[in-house]
Amino acid sequence: MRIDIISVLPELMESPFKTSILKRAVDKGLAEVYFHHLRDFGLGKHRQVDDAPYGGSAGMVMMVEPLDRCISELKEQRTYDEVIYLTPDGETLTQKIANSLSTKSNLIFLCGHYKGIDQRVRELHITKEISIGDYVLTGGELAACVLADSVIRLLPGVLNDEQSALTDSFQDNLLSPPIYTRPAEYKGLKVPEILLSGNLQKIQDWLHEESVKITQEKRPDLLE
Amino acid sequence: MRIDIISVLPELMESPFKTSILKRAVDKGLAEVYFHHLRDFGLGKHRQVDDAPYGGSAGMVMMVEPLDRCISELKEQRTYDEVIYLTPDGETLTQKIANSLSTKSNLIFLCGHYKGIDQRVRELHITKEISIGDYVLTGGELAACVLADSVIRLLPGVLNDEQSALTDSFQDNLLSPPIYTRPAEYKGLKVPEILLSGNLQKIQDWLHEESVKITQEKRPDLLE
Repeated sequence: MRIDIISVLPELMESPFKTSILKRAVDKGLAEVYFHHLRDFGLGKHRQVDDAPYGGSAGMVMMVEPLDRCISELKEQRTYDEVIYLTPDGETLTQKIANSLSTKSNLIFLCGHYKGIDQRVRELHITKEISIGDYVLTGGELAACVLADSVIRLLPGVLNDEQSALTDSFQDNLLSPPIYTRPAEYKGLKVPEILLSGNLQKIQDWLHEESVKITQEKRPDLLE
Repeated sequence: MRIDIISVLPELMESPFKTSILKRAVDKGLAEVYFHHLRDFGLGKHRQVDDAPYGGSAGMVMMVEPLDRCISELKEQRTYDEVIYLTPDGETLTQKIANSLSTKSNLIFLCGHYKGIDQRVRELHITKEISIGDYVLTGGELAACVLADSVIRLLPGVLNDEQSALTDSFQDNLLSPPIYTRPAEYKGLKVPEILLSGNLQKIQDWLHEESVKITQEKRPDLLE
């Protein structure tokens, strides 16, 4: 999988891609991630990339031409499965969307910034708009990191223990059961006896029951 | 506002806090952010922080004792409004929650990792569990960055133009209207004439109508 990330602030994304799973995936050659600094496609000697909005609203808008030039240049080099704009207005990211994107070959992530992008960029290039949740961030950079992490960790060979991704929350629409590790007692708080019983079938049943119970309590919407 | 972030991978969060709004807020003294490496509270000469779960499930669990020691040490030094565990099982982050947290003084963010934390940490210390969305990430570090960004940008004086945060998506349960900047025509795509009219009242009305229309189309749930 190849991901091209377009941003006015690529340096914000440095450390997430230099650590942990994302780094391992890149080092293993399972994912390629390239950052494109929008300012390299800016206009004039000041490399302008944003301007005041028409109509007198507050904030700045990312201009159509630098984005068009950047995305067009990438598209000339290869075919992209999706050109994704990270924006609070987009479709809300779910595990199902992450699963689906993990099967693609080439993706562009466009990080919104300021008040957003000129609407014409959407008309010209954007094939999918994704929001990581119903809250506003300073820019799309953290959203791009989140989306990349959620997708890249699903690529075969990225996680050490392949089973790990399959038993995650949401993969079966259930939240995780409570988990415990040693010691069996800490400050008077004990691990449930069933988990110490050694009876694997009973333990599996109990974990499943707890998952269902917790999901019913906290997120009944997931069971609908 | 002071935020203490506990993690097994604090280096993942370096660049987001060294750029953009988060850096500005810290530089201005509007927010203090401290990272605590859980391994500093690890057990034995290997500074152990995780162990296999009871009951034979896959993955590793963050142990109760290092977390208890770290959180207890922080709590001895000051009173915390919330001890927040970032986990996909938590309450889903919304702008309303971000607004509410932005009024607090001292917060602890605990980044889950591996398969999660020993349940007893929740019983001993956690006052709030937050998920940034219905998808699984490699760890809670990106979630902590997202939560910090969503909260810190709301602190008075952090954004340049205070109006900017108030006109964001979600602050009035409406998505943003389409926005445009110069040029008025690009590759045959024109800016809507109303925005060029100079009639501010008509423009405001149009922008509001577009907001409502877009929200009805994309996220009718926000209007309920």
